[in-house]
Amino acid sequence: MKALKELTATELGQLRQRVERELALQRANKLALDLSRGKPSPEQLDLSAELNEPLASLIANDGTDARNYGALRGIPEARALGGELMNVAADRVLAAGNSSLFLMYQVAATAMQRGLWADDRRWSRAAGPRMLAPVPGYDRHFTICESLGIEMLNVAMRDSGPDMDQAQRLAAEDASIKGIWCVPKYSNPTGCIYADETVAAMAELPRAAAADDFVVFWDNAYAVHDFEFPAAPLANLYDLAEAAGTAEHVALFSSTSKMTYASGGLGFCGGSDALLNALEGTLSLMCIGPDKVAQLRHARFLSGRIEEHMARHAAILKPKFAIVDQVLEEELGGLGIARWTQPKGGYFVSLTTPPRTAADIVKQAGEVGLKLTPAGATFPYGRDPNDDDIRIAPSFAPLNELEAAMRVLTGCVKLVAIAQLHRERPKGG
Amino acid sequence: MKALKELTATELGQLRQRVERELALQRANKLALDLSRGKPSPEQLDLSAELNEPLASLIANDGTDARNYGALRGIPEARALGGELMNVAADRVLAAGNSSLFLMYQVAATAMQRGLWADDRRWSRAAGPRMLAPVPGYDRHFTICESLGIEMLNVAMRDSGPDMDQAQRLAAEDASIKGIWCVPKYSNPTGCIYADETVAAMAELPRAAAADDFVVFWDNAYAVHDFEFPAAPLANLYDLAEAAGTAEHVALFSSTSKMTYASGGLGFCGGSDALLNALEGTLSLMCIGPDKVAQLRHARFLSGRIEEHMARHAAILKPKFAIVDQVLEEELGGLGIARWTQPKGGYFVSLTTPPRTAADIVKQAGEVGLKLTPAGATFPYGRDPNDDDIRIAPSFAPLNELEAAMRVLTGCVKLVAIAQLHRERPKGG
Repeated sequence: MKALKELTATELGQLRQRVERELALQRANKLALDLSRGKPSPEQLDLSAELNEPLASLIANDGTDARNYGALRGIPEARALGGELMNVAADRVLAAGNSSLFLMYQVAATAMQRGLWADDRRWSRAAGPRMLAPVPGYDRHFTICESLGIEMLNVAMRDSGPDMDQAQRLAAEDASIKGIWCVPKYSNPTGCIYADETVAAMAELPRAAAADDFVVFWDNAYAVHDFEFPAAPLANLYDLAEAAGTAEHVALFSSTSKMTYASGGLGFCGGSDALLNALEGTLSLMCIGPDKVAQLRHARFLSGRIEEHMARHAAILKPKFAIVDQVLEEELGGLGIARWTQPKGGYFVSLTTPPRTAADIVKQAGEVGLKLTPAGATFPYGRDPNDDDIRIAPSFAPLNELEAAMRVLTGCVKLVAIAQLHRERPKGG
Repeated sequence: MKALKELTATELGQLRQRVERELALQRANKLALDLSRGKPSPEQLDLSAELNEPLASLIANDGTDARNYGALRGIPEARALGGELMNVAADRVLAAGNSSLFLMYQVAATAMQRGLWADDRRWSRAAGPRMLAPVPGYDRHFTICESLGIEMLNVAMRDSGPDMDQAQRLAAEDASIKGIWCVPKYSNPTGCIYADETVAAMAELPRAAAADDFVVFWDNAYAVHDFEFPAAPLANLYDLAEAAGTAEHVALFSSTSKMTYASGGLGFCGGSDALLNALEGTLSLMCIGPDKVAQLRHARFLSGRIEEHMARHAAILKPKFAIVDQVLEEELGGLGIARWTQPKGGYFVSLTTPPRTAADIVKQAGEVGLKLTPAGATFPYGRDPNDDDIRIAPSFAPLNELEAAMRVLTGCVKLVAIAQLHRERPKGG
């Protein structure tokens, strides 16, 4: 296909009319398509039906009655499960309730207010504590920062992960920079896996930082969410951090939200004794213990068969990601107005459109009945400086709706790009 | 039995020797008795075995897939269950995860930092925000205050609930007093039920208060935890607050922790739209939604048969409370050194010993192998001004251990009281 900018005014006009006709048809269908959030589909949720079966016993391996109070760090088998996901020993793990986001919030809040190392270091003592936010990234991380009064500073994302030269330079020159957000595997939303050198540099970052209370937030939400097996490897941050002497400055997170039930899963935090003690101290102020019955259910269901289970998810998700890629290629390939990622796992595809068009595209798609993640949401404060990033979340929609949704999206990309070209071309040119 | 103070020195000496012999026997048994926390016993947990059965469907009444993300206020049937417990309509309820304590913490934190009424009122703007703490009370409430930087001021507890004259006077004269903690039914630890006049006065309290952001924290943890039926009534605070124009200044809490599983239950917060919006806003910063599968399990299990279910708990708990009362009466009745409450529900008995003896008694009991709630724990900052309050939590121990534990406790009460009498008597008297 010819690049859009090489088309004549007449050709552009014809293309616009064709796309407008197609979108008018879609609009007439009164669609309610939604590619906005990374929700598992009902078919995926059905894969965990066994969680609904009775537990043979409600007593944990160490004799703890899962039904009663206590065990703020979780029962041993749940901690072991978290260890499997985060690639650390079970005793490096706190297994909690249904939200790893909650644990991230509490670690950040603890870093701010109570301290992570049983000493007087507190982020809140800095005039304006800040965190590095590789962009595009995950909006819920940004919300945590905003709500705790932590400013954010963008760092560029590459295919190999955050630009570590930039991250190191920023952290080294400014002691108010206290941490960095990472989704190291199938990063939200680009889908990249951090390269070995990136992970190694990340383990060194707390030492390179000017702040002595720098923390790497390692949100490994998609640790085992591969589409192809054997699973893609990710370097072990905790081991590297131990070798680098920075183990007390990394906080690992993972969850089963997208392995079993998004609602009734388990969240995990992993790290040093100092980190786990501090987090447990904070949690002890507000709750007596996690839902250990849910922990028991999950440990018994997933232990020893994580990959087998995730392969079933892959069988559902991979065709959806294939459709996304296929429609993007069919509709936008060669037009020179968009590029997109082709993740081998995770929940998102990141679409890059011409500068200053993403918000328009998302708005127009909404008018045709397609809900997308709000433009800008993948950037701190909702501000995408280039206004060119759109996150596509294909997991929830059925295959046929997904294809229709992608036709709407690509149609809107074309229309907005044509309009932009039209505005930018010299009159009569 | 003769009062202790009427015994001669010889009689006191004989009594002391007898008690010491009994305790020496117990010590030789290397007991590990525990009356320290209000934990349900395994037999009580077994009453909810049905929670372990498969759910016929995982879809909530309103079509929500309980397995997926969302629904921060909970599914309709869980909100209705919370409404039943808190005596308000379902749409006045936020149904959450396994901890009502967590909700109390978040409401207090929201009052401090983000505001409860979508305006600029914040407790943190007061120089030293304070809450009234009826004493003796629940240590976890006090921990919330301490961790959020809210000071506490003791208010006397009567059999009818907090001394409302004192509460009103304090709140009316000091705008830094922002709220009050209440456990209105089977109060922790005295076991009293707030009288109708107390509840009516509580509904008026936010209006009487000098602060315009006063909040009544109404922790109805034992709302349905009666030993006798028909259940003892409690006046409806929310209705009274609506009539008094103070509905936006009461926050209701309840949970199923001591109805089903202490670990895997549901917590609820009830109140005005303003309160629920503010709480939901805070929760949205740190989690995506509650475990709605647990909500569905609980709603299906408990709906329409709360009293029947609680009667089964009563059949287990009532004999335990009877043993506690019986041993207290047998060992301490008439000695003039102790009084205790005789609750008709809930989880605790409050034992009042001679002034300046409680810490000693708890310490001596510990040396014989009986763990009790630390002396002072039922007061803010762990400081019982009279050092005379001991909380007894009889629910977890088996009946035979409970009796042994009570003999140890009463033995220690006698020993410490005798020693005190001995110190206080004029020499040679």
